[in-house]
Amino acid sequence: MIKSEKASPKDVIMEVYEFGENVLKKHHIKNIEDIRPFLEVSHKFWLNLCGLENEAVLKEISELFNIHPLTLEDIKNTSQRPKFEEFDDNIFVVTKMIYHKNKSHSPITEQVSILFGKNYIISIQENPYDIFDPIRTRLENPTGKMRKMGTDYFAYTLLDIIVDKYFDCLEFAVEKIESLEDQIISQSKKTKLPEIFNQRKVIQQIKRNVWPTRELLSAWKKSENPLVKKKTNPFINDVYEHVIEIIENLEIQRESISALVELFMSNLSLKQNEVMKTLTIIATIFIPLTFIAGVYGMNFQFMPELGWKYGYFFIWILFLGSTLAMVYYFKKKKWF
Amino acid sequence: MIKSEKASPKDVIMEVYEFGENVLKKHHIKNIEDIRPFLEVSHKFWLNLCGLENEAVLKEISELFNIHPLTLEDIKNTSQRPKFEEFDDNIFVVTKMIYHKNKSHSPITEQVSILFGKNYIISIQENPYDIFDPIRTRLENPTGKMRKMGTDYFAYTLLDIIVDKYFDCLEFAVEKIESLEDQIISQSKKTKLPEIFNQRKVIQQIKRNVWPTRELLSAWKKSENPLVKKKTNPFINDVYEHVIEIIENLEIQRESISALVELFMSNLSLKQNEVMKTLTIIATIFIPLTFIAGVYGMNFQFMPELGWKYGYFFIWILFLGSTLAMVYYFKKKKWF
Amino acid sequence: MIKSEKASPKDVIMEVYEFGENVLKKHHIKNIEDIRPFLEVSHKFWLNLCGLENEAVLKEISELFNIHPLTLEDIKNTSQRPKFEEFDDNIFVVTKMIYHKNKSHSPITEQVSILFGKNYIISIQENPYDIFDPIRTRLENPTGKMRKMGTDYFAYTLLDIIVDKYFDCLEFAVEKIESLEDQIISQSKKTKLPEIFNQRKVIQQIKRNVWPTRELLSAWKKSENPLVKKKTNPFINDVYEHVIEIIENLEIQRESISALVELFMSNLSLKQNEVMKTLTIIATIFIPLTFIAGVYGMNFQFMPELGWKYGYFFIWILFLGSTLAMVYYFKKKKWF
Amino acid sequence: MIKSEKASPKDVIMEVYEFGENVLKKHHIKNIEDIRPFLEVSHKFWLNLCGLENEAVLKEISELFNIHPLTLEDIKNTSQRPKFEEFDDNIFVVTKMIYHKNKSHSPITEQVSILFGKNYIISIQENPYDIFDPIRTRLENPTGKMRKMGTDYFAYTLLDIIVDKYFDCLEFAVEKIESLEDQIISQSKKTKLPEIFNQRKVIQQIKRNVWPTRELLSAWKKSENPLVKKKTNPFINDVYEHVIEIIENLEIQRESISALVELFMSNLSLKQNEVMKTLTIIATIFIPLTFIAGVYGMNFQFMPELGWKYGYFFIWILFLGSTLAMVYYFKKKKWF
Amino acid sequence: MIKSEKASPKDVIMEVYEFGENVLKKHHIKNIEDIRPFLEVSHKFWLNLCGLENEAVLKEISELFNIHPLTLEDIKNTSQRPKFEEFDDNIFVVTKMIYHKNKSHSPITEQVSILFGKNYIISIQENPYDIFDPIRTRLENPTGKMRKMGTDYFAYTLLDIIVDKYFDCLEFAVEKIESLEDQIISQSKKTKLPEIFNQRKVIQQIKRNVWPTRELLSAWKKSENPLVKKKTNPFINDVYEHVIEIIENLEIQRESISALVELFMSNLSLKQNEVMKTLTIIATIFIPLTFIAGVYGMNFQFMPELGWKYGYFFIWILFLGSTLAMVYYFKKKKWF
Repeated sequence: MIKSEKASPKDVIMEVYEFGENVLKKHHIKNIEDIRPFLEVSHKFWLNLCGLENEAVLKEISELFNIHPLTLEDIKNTSQRPKFEEFDDNIFVVTKMIYHKNKSHSPITEQVSILFGKNYIISIQENPYDIFDPIRTRLENPTGKMRKMGTDYFAYTLLDIIVDKYFDCLEFAVEKIESLEDQIISQSKKTKLPEIFNQRKVIQQIKRNVWPTRELLSAWKKSENPLVKKKTNPFINDVYEHVIEIIENLEIQRESISALVELFMSNLSLKQNEVMKTLTIIATIFIPLTFIAGVYGMNFQFMPELGWKYGYFFIWILFLGSTLAMVYYFKKKKWF
Repeated sequence: MIKSEKASPKDVIMEVYEFGENVLKKHHIKNIEDIRPFLEVSHKFWLNLCGLENEAVLKEISELFNIHPLTLEDIKNTSQRPKFEEFDDNIFVVTKMIYHKNKSHSPITEQVSILFGKNYIISIQENPYDIFDPIRTRLENPTGKMRKMGTDYFAYTLLDIIVDKYFDCLEFAVEKIESLEDQIISQSKKTKLPEIFNQRKVIQQIKRNVWPTRELLSAWKKSENPLVKKKTNPFINDVYEHVIEIIENLEIQRESISALVELFMSNLSLKQNEVMKTLTIIATIFIPLTFIAGVYGMNFQFMPELGWKYGYFFIWILFLGSTLAMVYYFKKKKWF
Repeated sequence: MIKSEKASPKDVIMEVYEFGENVLKKHHIKNIEDIRPFLEVSHKFWLNLCGLENEAVLKEISELFNIHPLTLEDIKNTSQRPKFEEFDDNIFVVTKMIYHKNKSHSPITEQVSILFGKNYIISIQENPYDIFDPIRTRLENPTGKMRKMGTDYFAYTLLDIIVDKYFDCLEFAVEKIESLEDQIISQSKKTKLPEIFNQRKVIQQIKRNVWPTRELLSAWKKSENPLVKKKTNPFINDVYEHVIEIIENLEIQRESISALVELFMSNLSLKQNEVMKTLTIIATIFIPLTFIAGVYGMNFQFMPELGWKYGYFFIWILFLGSTLAMVYYFKKKKWF
Repeated sequence: MIKSEKASPKDVIMEVYEFGENVLKKHHIKNIEDIRPFLEVSHKFWLNLCGLENEAVLKEISELFNIHPLTLEDIKNTSQRPKFEEFDDNIFVVTKMIYHKNKSHSPITEQVSILFGKNYIISIQENPYDIFDPIRTRLENPTGKMRKMGTDYFAYTLLDIIVDKYFDCLEFAVEKIESLEDQIISQSKKTKLPEIFNQRKVIQQIKRNVWPTRELLSAWKKSENPLVKKKTNPFINDVYEHVIEIIENLEIQRESISALVELFMSNLSLKQNEVMKTLTIIATIFIPLTFIAGVYGMNFQFMPELGWKYGYFFIWILFLGSTLAMVYYFKKKKWF
Repeated sequence: MIKSEKASPKDVIMEVYEFGENVLKKHHIKNIEDIRPFLEVSHKFWLNLCGLENEAVLKEISELFNIHPLTLEDIKNTSQRPKFEEFDDNIFVVTKMIYHKNKSHSPITEQVSILFGKNYIISIQENPYDIFDPIRTRLENPTGKMRKMGTDYFAYTLLDIIVDKYFDCLEFAVEKIESLEDQIISQSKKTKLPEIFNQRKVIQQIKRNVWPTRELLSAWKKSENPLVKKKTNPFINDVYEHVIEIIENLEIQRESISALVELFMSNLSLKQNEVMKTLTIIATIFIPLTFIAGVYGMNFQFMPELGWKYGYFFIWILFLGSTLAMVYYFKKKKWF
């Protein structure tokens, strides 16, 4: 979903979903103060905030939800490493979403900070573009788990969608790697090495974020915070397993890329070999012939062969004989 | 065994073996409801189900055997990582079988989900083709362990056969690698690098499944579930040892393949060297001779040598001398 | 900040900051004896000492602050590995700062020993140039934490600034690596391999110091010394996380450099291939032509073709035909 | 010792040594039944059995010594991984001996199963050739430990001799690697890459068996079986240390071989470079000269130079000048 | 210090230092029996023994100091892996010293066995040359720790000197590696690959001994033997830290050498490229020209161009034009 891109850089887009077993209301708020009423109702709500440029808004949020100054720093610093931190009345999770806005470009990494307390979930993104549409859809299902279960389940859902996107990006890279491999083997198209290296970078980009995500989930699993309910554990386990699978796949892809580079280089060597053989065959056949022709082009006054009647005829026999000898030699060496 | 391949995609093939110390009956059922009677008899039974497309059947099974929805998801998702999960009244194991339907193709990976309770074992495969004929044979032996021991022993037997197939696939790859090695060393045949890379892929395919299988067995060994009997432990240990051996062999094969690529590349370099030497020897001998011939082909009015009586004779001596000098030089350099 | 560089080698520069919640005084002292009065006042003070050549000064300090002789050795030995050591009334930390004095040179590594007791912090550097100006600035803020919190917080701040500089150096290296990568891919400029290797060295220089820093921080976190206050723990955790991030980035950069070298080498091969192709095309086209020309330059008395009216015309047709055949052959081989 | 090689494949050679502090008798038995009397005497005995083809014999042994069917399988399966297994009244050890029957061939791997109980040791080999002559010699020493200590000491001795043979094979490989290295550096002889790869295979062959041997010894050390006496512990520790040393050496040799391949490849490149230089020097000098000669071989009616008196003389000056210029250029480039 | 090298191989040199807080006497003894009186005095003594060939002496020592036969074996076997062993009344340490007798040769590895009891330290070396002169000097200092502290401190000092020598050898190798790097980058001198490989071997030689030394020190630190006093612990920690530093440096050097080989190989490729370019430029310019000259050297009776007045002039224009076109092409390709 691309939300209004015209938002001025200082603008922050704030979406609030008020929800409960029987309720679902969506609000677009302009000021963070508009959130206060939600805090007092008995429903849960999700505040999705896009844009980090407006410091004032972030400050207001941090005051409203009692966020530690260091945590606020982590939210603002978009190169923060994914992590899981527990506080007295909320839990803070930093994650990175990786997605393709445009399939012909490299995937984009964007930080998503998630904070959840007893009845609120706040997600803070860098840009208005996001990958959370499936959540909006699921929220609309009045009998879905999203509406019934706690805020930790909601946070899990966000994480789950983020990890699923890792899978998508990985799969997209795998497809590209496989098509590059086909190209190299069939030699149907000129493959450029930088294309291979680009895929290596995508693999690295995912790896860089998926490893700390694993630690994050590990910490979550071990957490004894009352906000983390037992019922959510199997779901977290599920994401954890996905992360392990991604990690294993990344390793396999890393090896595939190394093999690909090797294949590319060896193909280059094979081609070079062929080029050299062509040159050598031609040169080796004609250089001696040219020499012989040169000999009988000399202007010595006394060169008996020149006067022979069949001299020219014999010389052609010499030419052919020498050529055939060379061809035989190359055949024996299996150069053809 | 290739079971009727004509089964329409939506069709699910269901085979039921009712067995006990004195009993062995085989049934082909059409509806999952037909299984209910088996649940009440005192014998054990094995339900082998092929085909995942028919959701209705899977749902019925999950209701009949009280399967958790997440487990059902795992059964349907054919890229599920091998794992071992315990529930209150059954144990769920995901495995992958790897086999050659046709030796000239790459091996095929197929998911097999195994669920066993007190008196039933269910195996769910993707396709009708399977590798479980040895089990069918062993079941027919009235004094065999299959009929006497518990369902965990039956599940072990399935796993054992799957792991044995890994060995077969690995051995087949090893044979191919060794024949490629012989080809490269003897240079009897043109080896294509992609053939080497194909074997690398097979190695990776096995590795990808054998590592999680190790974890699976580790979890089984540590399990304290009453369904897992002490008597079965030495057997599980046995499979575990096989898995370790496969892992060690995979590593050795990985190194062999790297060495093979190195050997291939160095052979290429050696050949290139030989080609270059041939060219250099021919060119170095004849280029100067051609020059000399060219000199005496010039049309200057005043070239004293042309008028000498033995000029032509001397020039041949020069040709021969120069050639011999070159040959001597190459001999000294050990280029021949 | 570059402090007077004219200091004679034996000179030691000593800066003392006396500070407390309401106090901040800066002193430049000449003799270590001048420090004694500070020890008795109720404020804390920071002694920043530059220069290790004057053994007498170091000895006086070690007596004044009751420093163990082995610790004194560690301070003097500028190749000491970073470490954390606790004593009865102070804590001793060896660190390395890495900074760029001049962006076009390699970064410089310099040892900084930090010793802190209940109300003093001593930092001992090799040279007058340092990276601690941010500390001087923060000290001036009367409501800042620097003035309020304990000496362990002060030591943390020094560490934090040092680790931040690692980040800067790493980032600078990353930029260079990326610009080298662009150069290689676009081939806009001749890249020299030694430039790539220089960046590899910088990566190694940082790695060499960041790994023991991690152990140092680990030891600090586990320390139960009363000088290490609980309040400072989250800050130490923060530096620790930075260090982990640097370590992960170093690994990624190490891989990038390997990929870069591979890319460089393969580009070289590609160029070589192109050179060889050019030579082969030219030689393969013209060598046979030259031979034909040579044949009709021979002086045999009986060469019927020479007398033909259209002989010369036919020979040009032969030339053109042969050339076209070759061009067609090269096109088919996709050499153009 | 080469025992009668004429033994028909189905034949099993059985050697029995009855021994005690004062006794040593050697028997050659034909039927396993002949062993029963030894079981009842108070001496210990060693049964050394060669040949696995005769299933009947193995079955009798397994009944006589109460061997578990799975263990019997392990004995028969000659690709069993080395391991240590404890039973109620005996201990079972699978090992591999590696030895050179002929120094010019690759070493041979052969499985040796060892089973020892309170007063018997059974060793089962594949072939009659073995490496246990030192044991036969030591047994003859009436005051040696072999006669005095328990069966576990005897088993240790077998293991010790096997591990010592690993050392011998490793040393033999090391010698070959070093001689290959000398050959490559001195270039005294044409080294074939496959020879290097053969040594790599030997290293791998040893590694494959020495790693599980380490685990085996580890298990032995931790064993609390009454058959394993405390007194034997230092000896087992000794073998363990040897195994560790072999493992470390294998790693070093693996690196040496990699370095050797690198050296080989770089030598090849150096030679290629030299070949190319020779070609380039000759071609670059003579190709322009040949052109000049060609120019004055043209038959234009109006070519003023041809009529000059010193034309031919000048042309030689041109030839020499051009040659000298080229030689100077190559000297400057340090190609000579 | 080079002690009398004329000692016959069977000779053993024995040096005894009797020392205490107020005493230092040096003795040269001939027979091991001469040591007995020292055992009864209240001072400590150090027996430094050089030469392992005389079995009788070693046997006498082992009886005198109650050395276990296996330990005696370890002393004699000069390829013993460094280790730490505790006995009831003494501690046995095997170490390796690595030193340069001659800087232009490879460093030498020599085994030093150290045995210390309550009042004696015995060091046993292979050859008379040793690196322990600093110990002899320190012993002369009557207020030094060597005289005051226990025999464990003495043993530590020996170890410390040995480890310091590792540093020296490493540093010497590093210097060589750096000078090789400079040579390769500046191309001032022909670098031979074997020189790089020699440094790799030195690195490996140190690594081989420093790893077990680390385990040795680890064991020492954990030892609870009364011979190992608490006071000595910080010193052992210090050596331990040095060993860790050496290990880290070895790893860095290993990477440097790999980078060096890569640099060397890529330089080779660059040179090859340059050679090929030179050849290609010359050949590509002159081969077509030679062909044209050849054409007008043909003897056809009817070749109209030959009769033209400006034919020769036009042909030179053709020559120049073709050359310029080629030069332009090469410029565009950036081959110059």
